[in-house]
Amino acid sequence: MKLKRSERIVDMTATLLDNPNKMFSLKDFTTKYESAKSSISEDLAIIKETFENNNIGIIETIVGSNGGVIYFPKLKPEIQEMYVEELINDLDNPKRILPGGYFYLSDIITNPKYLENIAKVIASQHYGEKIDYVLTVATKGVSVAQAVAKELGIPFVIARKESKITEGSTVSVKYKSQSAPNLVKNMEIGRESLKENSNILLVDDFFRGGGTINGMASIVEIFNSKVVASYVICEFNDKGLTQKLNTKSLVLITGMDPDTGKIDIQKGTIFDK
Amino acid sequence: MKLKRSERIVDMTATLLDNPNKMFSLKDFTTKYESAKSSISEDLAIIKETFENNNIGIIETIVGSNGGVIYFPKLKPEIQEMYVEELINDLDNPKRILPGGYFYLSDIITNPKYLENIAKVIASQHYGEKIDYVLTVATKGVSVAQAVAKELGIPFVIARKESKITEGSTVSVKYKSQSAPNLVKNMEIGRESLKENSNILLVDDFFRGGGTINGMASIVEIFNSKVVASYVICEFNDKGLTQKLNTKSLVLITGMDPDTGKIDIQKGTIFDK
Repeated sequence: MKLKRSERIVDMTATLLDNPNKMFSLKDFTTKYESAKSSISEDLAIIKETFENNNIGIIETIVGSNGGVIYFPKLKPEIQEMYVEELINDLDNPKRILPGGYFYLSDIITNPKYLENIAKVIASQHYGEKIDYVLTVATKGVSVAQAVAKELGIPFVIARKESKITEGSTVSVKYKSQSAPNLVKNMEIGRESLKENSNILLVDDFFRGGGTINGMASIVEIFNSKVVASYVICEFNDKGLTQKLNTKSLVLITGMDPDTGKIDIQKGTIFDK
Repeated sequence: MKLKRSERIVDMTATLLDNPNKMFSLKDFTTKYESAKSSISEDLAIIKETFENNNIGIIETIVGSNGGVIYFPKLKPEIQEMYVEELINDLDNPKRILPGGYFYLSDIITNPKYLENIAKVIASQHYGEKIDYVLTVATKGVSVAQAVAKELGIPFVIARKESKITEGSTVSVKYKSQSAPNLVKNMEIGRESLKENSNILLVDDFFRGGGTINGMASIVEIFNSKVVASYVICEFNDKGLTQKLNTKSLVLITGMDPDTGKIDIQKGTIFDK
């Protein structure tokens, strides 16, 4: 289909945004739009510049005969910090303190807009890296994993405390709870859900002692795979527990007082150098 | 910021795609780009036409002083059917038959690309309607709910079999299992997660007797809200159970034989008139 420049630009913008981390060759576009390489290159230069100027993400150009363009949702550091500050403003609310030192995050992790911003901050850390899966543990981490997987253009995998018949055959691991060290917990994932020798990103909603993150790391080992990095939305380090994996957080809570409603909350370790 | 037409078009395309179902006034754009109304109107006409010609979705123009444009991911019927046919091709695989007449869908509901296509088919049925939440039941429906909620630009809500401390206060309902009519089950949702008098879309991954869908309908009633429609990816009507709600499916399985691996699978009831 022969299109005008402005129409090509609309369609290319939509195609790239809908396929993060996927390479399109110039030929894909010259064929689709029946246009010369030089025209497509000019179109892409406009899209690339606008994406950068308007904080949409980056478009990388790969030169050579196998070359092409890749869109990646990498945000500028100041935009990442802005998203995290918005999150902190919304989390700094006495109503969020639940009995037993728990914290209410349900509205955040069921809101597609928040999830998208959180996912883009996490994805921004991994531009140019090969990642095969996002792994999380049911149930609260699932929506974060899904959002991050979408930004990276890869599938996600859910580990569960008990296996479900509908998972097919599973692999299970036992792991020690960090908050109650005498407690041994179980975690399972479908045998078909992860390929060996993969690079894996771990995500969860909330981090206290890191027991579940360690459990996920054990699963990754069983599949002869590698943890690339590990993230949580919210870290609460009230117990001074140590963690094996260097899990990074978007938001760090260092204290909360149910009586006064005061929450000590700040930017998480994701921005630490 | 003053932009050229082609740059405005890139940024407007990205903004609209990122905000389905949200109205932008002409003034939002004339202010942002420091451009005349007539220029923005021409830009939008190009975007609108390209979205329609390339099956990206529709852009509705609302005229008048409160007017503006709204992007909605409504796909043409032939594209919807194409997505469902792709799904059928992938599901028609003997390996998917699990012991006990269960069906393996895990790879589909953890793949962002499939989820997006499924969500767009479901969202396409509700262009122009006011919907406030997508409701599902943990755990397998969650990724579908999240994907549909994203396309509709609204939050999703998760009902759970047992409440979690991190949900805060919950409301519970009891409901009858359809497949085992003597079994009474429990379902809970956070009290804060749904506002009264809402319009709600129900979604789930798999439908057999419709017990869980009925359970969700009871929750909707408690919140004085209304079920707009109810969807599942996959319906398996082996038991001839009747359903109260007219739940629509993308894919319908009428039989599967673990011995021969034969699956009788066809388009679901979503396309029935």
